[in-house]
Amino acid sequence: MNIYITKQLSTSIYRISNSTLNQSIVSNLRAISTSAAMSNKNRTFELPSRYKGTKESVWTEYIQMALDYKPLNLGQGFPDYPPPKYIMDALAKASNQSDYMLHQYTRGFGHPRLVAAIAKLYSKLIGREINAKTEVITTIGAYEALFSTIMGHTEVGDEVIIIEPFYDCYEPMVRYAGGIPKFVPLRLKEVSGRLPTSADWVLDKDELESAFNEKTKSIIINTPNNPLGKVFTEAELTHIANLCKKWNALCISDEVYEWIVYKPNKHIRIATLPGMWERTITIGSAGKTFNVTGWKMGWAYCPANLMKNLQMIHQNTVYTGVTPIQEATAIGFEIEVERLDSDECFFNQLPKELESKRDYMANMLVNAGMKPTIPEGGYFMLADWTPLESKIDLSGEKDMQKDYKFTKWMTKSIGLQGIPPSAFYGESHKNLGENFVRYCFIKKDENLQKANDILLKWKSSLK
Amino acid sequence: MNIYITKQLSTSIYRISNSTLNQSIVSNLRAISTSAAMSNKNRTFELPSRYKGTKESVWTEYIQMALDYKPLNLGQGFPDYPPPKYIMDALAKASNQSDYMLHQYTRGFGHPRLVAAIAKLYSKLIGREINAKTEVITTIGAYEALFSTIMGHTEVGDEVIIIEPFYDCYEPMVRYAGGIPKFVPLRLKEVSGRLPTSADWVLDKDELESAFNEKTKSIIINTPNNPLGKVFTEAELTHIANLCKKWNALCISDEVYEWIVYKPNKHIRIATLPGMWERTITIGSAGKTFNVTGWKMGWAYCPANLMKNLQMIHQNTVYTGVTPIQEATAIGFEIEVERLDSDECFFNQLPKELESKRDYMANMLVNAGMKPTIPEGGYFMLADWTPLESKIDLSGEKDMQKDYKFTKWMTKSIGLQGIPPSAFYGESHKNLGENFVRYCFIKKDENLQKANDILLKWKSSLK
Repeated sequence: MNIYITKQLSTSIYRISNSTLNQSIVSNLRAISTSAAMSNKNRTFELPSRYKGTKESVWTEYIQMALDYKPLNLGQGFPDYPPPKYIMDALAKASNQSDYMLHQYTRGFGHPRLVAAIAKLYSKLIGREINAKTEVITTIGAYEALFSTIMGHTEVGDEVIIIEPFYDCYEPMVRYAGGIPKFVPLRLKEVSGRLPTSADWVLDKDELESAFNEKTKSIIINTPNNPLGKVFTEAELTHIANLCKKWNALCISDEVYEWIVYKPNKHIRIATLPGMWERTITIGSAGKTFNVTGWKMGWAYCPANLMKNLQMIHQNTVYTGVTPIQEATAIGFEIEVERLDSDECFFNQLPKELESKRDYMANMLVNAGMKPTIPEGGYFMLADWTPLESKIDLSGEKDMQKDYKFTKWMTKSIGLQGIPPSAFYGESHKNLGENFVRYCFIKKDENLQKANDILLKWKSSLK
Repeated sequence: MNIYITKQLSTSIYRISNSTLNQSIVSNLRAISTSAAMSNKNRTFELPSRYKGTKESVWTEYIQMALDYKPLNLGQGFPDYPPPKYIMDALAKASNQSDYMLHQYTRGFGHPRLVAAIAKLYSKLIGREINAKTEVITTIGAYEALFSTIMGHTEVGDEVIIIEPFYDCYEPMVRYAGGIPKFVPLRLKEVSGRLPTSADWVLDKDELESAFNEKTKSIIINTPNNPLGKVFTEAELTHIANLCKKWNALCISDEVYEWIVYKPNKHIRIATLPGMWERTITIGSAGKTFNVTGWKMGWAYCPANLMKNLQMIHQNTVYTGVTPIQEATAIGFEIEVERLDSDECFFNQLPKELESKRDYMANMLVNAGMKPTIPEGGYFMLADWTPLESKIDLSGEKDMQKDYKFTKWMTKSIGLQGIPPSAFYGESHKNLGENFVRYCFIKKDENLQKANDILLKWKSSLK
């Protein structure tokens, strides 16, 4: 065939006289280029195909719903009361006229004062000297730290293990990097005679083990976990660590709720387990640490050879962080690092303050007829809402998942907003989240009481 | 061959008795998985191959050099004097305790008060109603706006035209997206009897035209241009616009220096040219607009169908911006939008203030023996340093490009730092930048005088 076509062409070219040849080529080229331009005419500037399937996140939809229906909002995770005064003062100080150079660019991989403070704090906490320049990066929230980590460490085709339920950005980030998420769920054990706690949600050892293979590049863990509040035990982390070492895989450890752990539970940093420092990237957040989610101030620490890859992604995404925000965060850390063991330390005050809110919310949900899982950490609570299912009519909502229906119904009908946990599961496991709703309890006592009133009023209307 | 192998295999499987078969498969699988794990052992966690070749940016290297040698720094583009008082006050106000909710998350695609202010300002400037919710996004600096735009609009294999010299992040961003950068240089016309201006750096019309083809997805323009200071004329922009329309390509218009234009030049927004709104994404920066580069506050505006793609990338990279920074920027815009035509408007004051610094720097460089190009906009100046080449010994520096050698020599030997412009060219055109050095003149008069003294002292030492 090819030979035939070539022969035909050369024959026809041969027939064109020299004088017309050039002209003919030119007009042919014109025709080609016009037809190419014509084909571009249909281009409609869609999202590149590698990102196809990207949806609006649950947050975009639920924040808009909050704006539209103005419910009492127990959805998004942020306090509705002031952060500690000293941290607001620190930002006001960093905005000050006498330190005017704080309004200009700082070092790309982290403001020198802040990376020094972070290195000092975590050197103490993990019992190893962390190099502020080469082993710490500051980022636009823990979110960008996750992005830089996942992009910088995921080859196309690499498998990344994600434990469900998970903070919802992990999955699209892995897919954007060309990686393949492999989901392993925490499963709720049967408990009787008491409410479940987040410790009752466990990994099946064999299920986790069989998720690892020669394509596994990394596992993302989140302790304390959002949305469950599970604080992984040393035994659980050791099992994960052993698998990481066996398969020479990385551990991406999202520890943004590291300070929000309820006694007697203890936060264990997986980077401190034997052989794990060299394969762990640990991620933290000033938003969660100082109650200032709007600062979008995060960081990661890890060995320099792993950090290099985060730096390259960060450099080509945002290049550098916000100077006054970094200065203020540094001031905050400098204050706290000196009083880590004292009751005055905000990191110790915060979980105490939240524990009574947690207990109030658990009671409230039990009284409303739901079955909450008591979290060991974090400021979210999952509750099984299906005991109410027979009493409500969800047919007005058209979503696939019934937790979406339930939370939308609740926002619109009784004015209380939660988040549907199926958003925190991979496609094939969304059913595991459908019986639950996530509420946030880092809210004013006054607002928690209002939520209680709303639920009680609704419940009494049923009778 | 295939048939032969299959036959051999089935024969050998046939020979295994049923009882040993399962055992054999299991032990085979074990062997496979062990050997796979073994092969992972060699994994050293390099940057994914699609990012290979990513280098430290010129900024990382030159900022470190500034820290090491402490030269008078005319390298990076930021003022070394205070930003306007009202903008610092605005941030202090946004950090205030009475508005404490400004320390928490705001809307992901832009703080409502800020997107409203941006939409109001640019609706006025481009003579078209911009929808604050669907046609504006706020980002972590113009840098992240570029990232979200390029990632959200570049399919693997798409060609993206970049005009040289260019702000250095364009190229790695296009490559990260899987796009192919096509470079078209501005070329310096012969001028005699006067210094060149940035208007003497022009595109060759045919060269630009031949860069467009059916694979062209977009062109990135930067007016006023960094590092040249070129302010593209209406005729130049119209030529670019016509090519974009002909090839149904997008125009990514980086206009971060939009307010820094020296009379009688005028900044023209390409989005205002006929048929261009629907294919232009315009990018701006509070860092350049209010002299607060450390705020990392940027934005983009464009039609909703194009914006959707930026939103999806932004959502999965940083998710949302910094609330107090956005609030303060909104306050700044609200003040300026009311006095746009008055001399009091900071946007009008800034170029006046800078024009005398520009002229001082041009004189200084001429007196030192260099040949500057007078910029029509921005706060950078390119100067041809080669008239000095015979008087200096660059053999101590090992870089490939001689502008790198010159700038390093100057930092180390006479204590004055500039930036090598070959960093702003694609690999095959780096020679076009080598005769130049970039200096920044948004510096205290006192420091410009010091630079002058350094150069004069050096020059007199030659005699």
